[in-house]
Amino acid sequence: MSVREDAQEILSSALRRAKELPRFAVRSTLPLLPPNDGKLLLLAVGKAAWEMADEAYRLLGDRIDGGIVLTKYGHSRGGIGPLAVREAGHPVPDENTYAATREILALTDGLTERDTVLFCLSGGGSALFERPLLPPDELEDITRQLLSCGADIGEINTLRKRFSAVKGGRFAAHCAPGRVFSILLSDVLGDRPDSIASGPACPDGSTCEEASEIARKYRLSLSPQALDLLARETPKRLPNAETHIAGSVRQLCEEAERVCREKGYQTVLLTDRLSCEAREAGGFFASVARTYAEKSGKYAFLAGGETVVRVTGTGMGGRNQELALAAAIGLDGLPPEKAVLFSFGSDGTDGPTDAAGGFADGRTAQKMRDAGVSPADALRNNDAYNALRASGDLLVTGPTGTNVNDLTVLLTDGGER
Amino acid sequence: MSVREDAQEILSSALRRAKELPRFAVRSTLPLLPPNDGKLLLLAVGKAAWEMADEAYRLLGDRIDGGIVLTKYGHSRGGIGPLAVREAGHPVPDENTYAATREILALTDGLTERDTVLFCLSGGGSALFERPLLPPDELEDITRQLLSCGADIGEINTLRKRFSAVKGGRFAAHCAPGRVFSILLSDVLGDRPDSIASGPACPDGSTCEEASEIARKYRLSLSPQALDLLARETPKRLPNAETHIAGSVRQLCEEAERVCREKGYQTVLLTDRLSCEAREAGGFFASVARTYAEKSGKYAFLAGGETVVRVTGTGMGGRNQELALAAAIGLDGLPPEKAVLFSFGSDGTDGPTDAAGGFADGRTAQKMRDAGVSPADALRNNDAYNALRASGDLLVTGPTGTNVNDLTVLLTDGGER
Repeated sequence: MSVREDAQEILSSALRRAKELPRFAVRSTLPLLPPNDGKLLLLAVGKAAWEMADEAYRLLGDRIDGGIVLTKYGHSRGGIGPLAVREAGHPVPDENTYAATREILALTDGLTERDTVLFCLSGGGSALFERPLLPPDELEDITRQLLSCGADIGEINTLRKRFSAVKGGRFAAHCAPGRVFSILLSDVLGDRPDSIASGPACPDGSTCEEASEIARKYRLSLSPQALDLLARETPKRLPNAETHIAGSVRQLCEEAERVCREKGYQTVLLTDRLSCEAREAGGFFASVARTYAEKSGKYAFLAGGETVVRVTGTGMGGRNQELALAAAIGLDGLPPEKAVLFSFGSDGTDGPTDAAGGFADGRTAQKMRDAGVSPADALRNNDAYNALRASGDLLVTGPTGTNVNDLTVLLTDGGER
Repeated sequence: MSVREDAQEILSSALRRAKELPRFAVRSTLPLLPPNDGKLLLLAVGKAAWEMADEAYRLLGDRIDGGIVLTKYGHSRGGIGPLAVREAGHPVPDENTYAATREILALTDGLTERDTVLFCLSGGGSALFERPLLPPDELEDITRQLLSCGADIGEINTLRKRFSAVKGGRFAAHCAPGRVFSILLSDVLGDRPDSIASGPACPDGSTCEEASEIARKYRLSLSPQALDLLARETPKRLPNAETHIAGSVRQLCEEAERVCREKGYQTVLLTDRLSCEAREAGGFFASVARTYAEKSGKYAFLAGGETVVRVTGTGMGGRNQELALAAAIGLDGLPPEKAVLFSFGSDGTDGPTDAAGGFADGRTAQKMRDAGVSPADALRNNDAYNALRASGDLLVTGPTGTNVNDLTVLLTDGGER
C-alpha cells in the first residue's frame, strides 16, 4: 500500500467517525442520566441537533415527555416522535431564532426538582438559541463597535453573555430547580464548556468586572440599559446542572490515530487545538515530512484544531485547502511515495467552497504548474481551491452533519532500514 | 526536578554540544582523510574556521605543510602553528575578502594529484571567500535587481555562482588535479553541499539553463560580460573532490534529544529544517503544549531549523525571541510546572540583540503584564526582546563560535496517570 492509498483509507475512516460523533456522544453519555420521577424533556440545539435528538429518542423513546429540536436551515431530516423540530438562521439569528427560543423557555417554565431537561448542544447554538435583553439593533451596534476596535472573540462573548437571557448559564438558571443534563459536542478548541454555544447551561467563567473592563478599554458607547446589564452577574454556581462534553475533535484525532496504527504507522498526535495560521501550519508539516522522509519506518503526525487564514487575496479557498497548498509548496519534488498530507473540516465544508479540504504530496506543486497554475502565486492570492482543483488534490466529502473542527494528517514512509 | 530546571540543563548540554561541533566535525571526519605523499594544505573558511583549523592542526600537526584560516572580524583567537590567519567582512565582502581569497588561490595554484587540500568550511563562507568575475558594483547592482523583483535566495545564488571564480565547485576545479577533502559544518537547512557557502568545492546542482531562465523571468538588465558568464557552466563532475557534511543542526537536535531522554522524557524530534514564520511556530508549539499538559507523562518536542520573522514593527528581537514570545501568549495561564519552551540560535546571537533566544511558560505573559508590557502589543511591534527582558525570560549565552541554525525544545509534564 502506498502512503496515498493509506491516506485515503484513514480519511474514510475519520470521516465515518466524524459523521457518527453526534450519535456517539449521546449514546455514550445517556447511561449517566440520573433517574427521575418527574418530566423528562429533550432539547437539542445546534448544527448537529437533529442527529443528537434522533439518537436520544431512539434510545429513550416513550420516557421522553416532549421537547424541541432547533437547528440551522436545511439541517433537519424530518420529524422525531413527539418532538417539535424548528429551523432558524445561522450565523445571523432571525425571527425564527427568537420564536423557537421563546418556545423552549415556555416549555421549561415552572419545572420542579423532579423534572429533567436532557439538553443536547452542538456548535452553532450561540446564534440559534438566543433571547436578547437589548433591542437586536443595539446589540448589532455593540458588536460592530467591538469588532472595529479589534476586540477578540473571547471579549466579544464576555459582553454578549450579559445581554442575553439564555447564555452564560442563564438558561440553566431559568430551568431551576428542574435539573439540566447537558451532552455537548464541542466545536471550541480546548472544549471550555462555558464557551460552547456561549454556555447556556453551565456556570460562567467570566465576570462583571471583566465585562466592565472590556467596555472601558474599548471606550464603548453604551445605553443606560446596556450599562445596567453589564453590572448583572451571570450564574457562578448551578447545582441543578450537569455537563458532559462527549464529542470533540479529540475523538476524531484518536480515531484517525487508531487507523494509522493499524496500518503500521508510528503515530504522534501533536495537538487537538491547533490554531496558528493555516499556511504556516502547512509549512511546519512539510518540514516534518522532509525530515521523516529520510528516516526509516512509517510515521503519522496528526493535529486537530482550527487554523486561521489571513485573507489578503481575491482567490477562493478555506483554511484546510490553504494548509494543503502551503504543504504542497514545502513538499515540492519529494518522491510522492515518501509523504502525503491531508487536511479537512469535519463538517465537510472548508471556507465558501464545495470542498472539505485538500491533499498534498511531492508531485502536487508540479501538477499545478503543468496545469498552468503557480503554487506560490495561488498561495499569495488565497486561491488554494483553484490550485488544488488544477492538480486534482481537492478533498470533497459533502456535508457530514457534524461540526468538531478540522483534522490534519501527515504520513511519511522513509523505507526500510 | 521541574520542567524549568530540566530545560536549563538540556539547554546547557545543547550549548556545550553547539560549541564543540566545529571541533567534533573535524575530529570525526579526519580519520577518513586519504593518505597522501605530496603536500597537505589546510584551508579553513567561515565563521567557525578558527576552531575547525585549530582542531585539525592539533590532530595533524607537522603533517600540515601550510595553509590559511579565513574568518569573520573578531572570530579568530590567535595564531595556529604555521597557518596564516585572516579576517574579513561579513555579511558584506570587503577588500580583505578579496585579498585573502587571492592568497588562497595562489597557495593552491599548480597542485599535483599527489597534493591534498584539507578544506574546512562553515557558514559565512559565501561572503568571506570570493573572487568576483564582474566588477563588485555591477554584482551589487544585479543583486539589487534580483531582490527588488522578489527572487528567492536559491535563484540569487544560482546567478551569483556564475559570477564567481570560486563558488559552484570552481575552487575545487582550480585545485585539480590536487585533491580537495572538504569537512563541512552546515548552516543550510537540508544540508545541500552545493548550497553551504555556495559550494566552492563540490559539483554544482544548478545549470546555465536555469540561470538564463532566471535572468529572463526577472528581465534583468545585464552587461555583455555578465551574459557571457551566464553561459559558462559550473563543474558538474569533480573527481578530485570529496565532501563530508560533519556537523549540522541535526547533531544539535540529537544531543538535546539524548539529554531529554536521560531526564525521563519521551521525545519527538519533529524536524531538523523548520522554516515557517517564527510566531506561528511558537503558536504551534503552544498548541502541542496545551494538549500534552493534560496527558500523563513527560514529553519533549524538538525542532531544529531557522524560522523567519516578517518585520512590520519597530521593536527589537530575533526569530528565536519572537517564537518564544508567541509561545508565551499561547501558554498564558497554563501552570508553569506543566510546560516550558526555549528556542535559541546556536551561534549565540538572535537578531541584532545580545540574546540568543528566549524561554516561555504559562507565567511569562503575566510577568510581562505585571511589568507593564502587553505581550500582544509587543508581538505586533516585533519587540520580543524588551518583552522577554521584562519577564526575565531572555536566553543569553554570548557568542558560541559555531553556526548551525536554531534549536527549539518544548517540555511537557502532565503528571502521573
